Amino acid sequence: MAVMPPLDPAIAARLKRDDSGLVAAVVQQHDTGEVLMLGWMDDEALRRTLVEGRVTFWSRSRQEYWRKGDTSGHVQWVRSVALDCDGDALLVRVDQVGAACHTGDRTCFDAGDLGATAGEQVGHDTQQGGAA
Amino acid sequence: MAVMPPLDPAIAARLKRDDSGLVAAVVQQHDTGEVLMLGWMDDEALRRTLVEGRVTFWSRSRQEYWRKGDTSGHVQWVRSVALDCDGDALLVRVDQVGAACHTGDRTCFDAGDLGATAGEQVGHDTQQGGAA
Repeated sequence: MAVMPPLDPAIAARLKRDDSGLVAAVVQQHDTGEVLMLGWMDDEALRRTLVEGRVTFWSRSRQEYWRKGDTSGHVQWVRSVALDCDGDALLVRVDQVGAACHTGDRTCFDAGDLGATAGEQVGHDTQQGGAA
Repeated sequence: MAVMPPLDPAIAARLKRDDSGLVAAVVQQHDTGEVLMLGWMDDEALRRTLVEGRVTFWSRSRQEYWRKGDTSGHVQWVRSVALDCDGDALLVRVDQVGAACHTGDRTCFDAGDLGATAGEQVGHDTQQGGAA
């Protein structure tokens, strides 16, 4: 069995992992800008994502690696991966095949509007408006 | 001192918080689709964000509430807030004033490209391509 090289140490040194060794990965459709879902990656999931052209997460519920689309066919083809300024979040831009959400919705946020009150700047003053 | 009502129990019941009581909040510019940053919210930060028209986070490093823009002027005006299918991530669509990143960059991901190998589907086959 081939021994995989670890994640590039220069990248690994920049990660600010949570207590479970994970960073958040925001997945965005590269052309429309849709935020599709949020997943979690450890060093190995990130390494695979950077070199395989497909997105791999660490599943917190199943405690195993999970390459998106292997079961559903709803593959995420990697376009770019960026780390944020403080090292605890990744932005993964992809070309999403089909639905990103296991419910069949295009994104995992489609069904979850919480009815926020909108705010807006008016001139030099500020106000709140919209329905609660 | 006024006692604030807690977060709507129907919403609170849907949150899947981490061990620190937090959920991830992805912040997106509402019109361009830019992913600006990722922050963290507890129930109270979410409650404030839903009713105040401005985004409040919980700062993990400072262990305090942090209403974006109070110091920098780089306010995030709320347009909508959605919870994802499994309750551990929020998508907050905003109108961002100025730079979202403390470095002065528009987004916290601008300076962080990790040089991923891109993947793409070609016909019914798959391939990887692009520079490593």
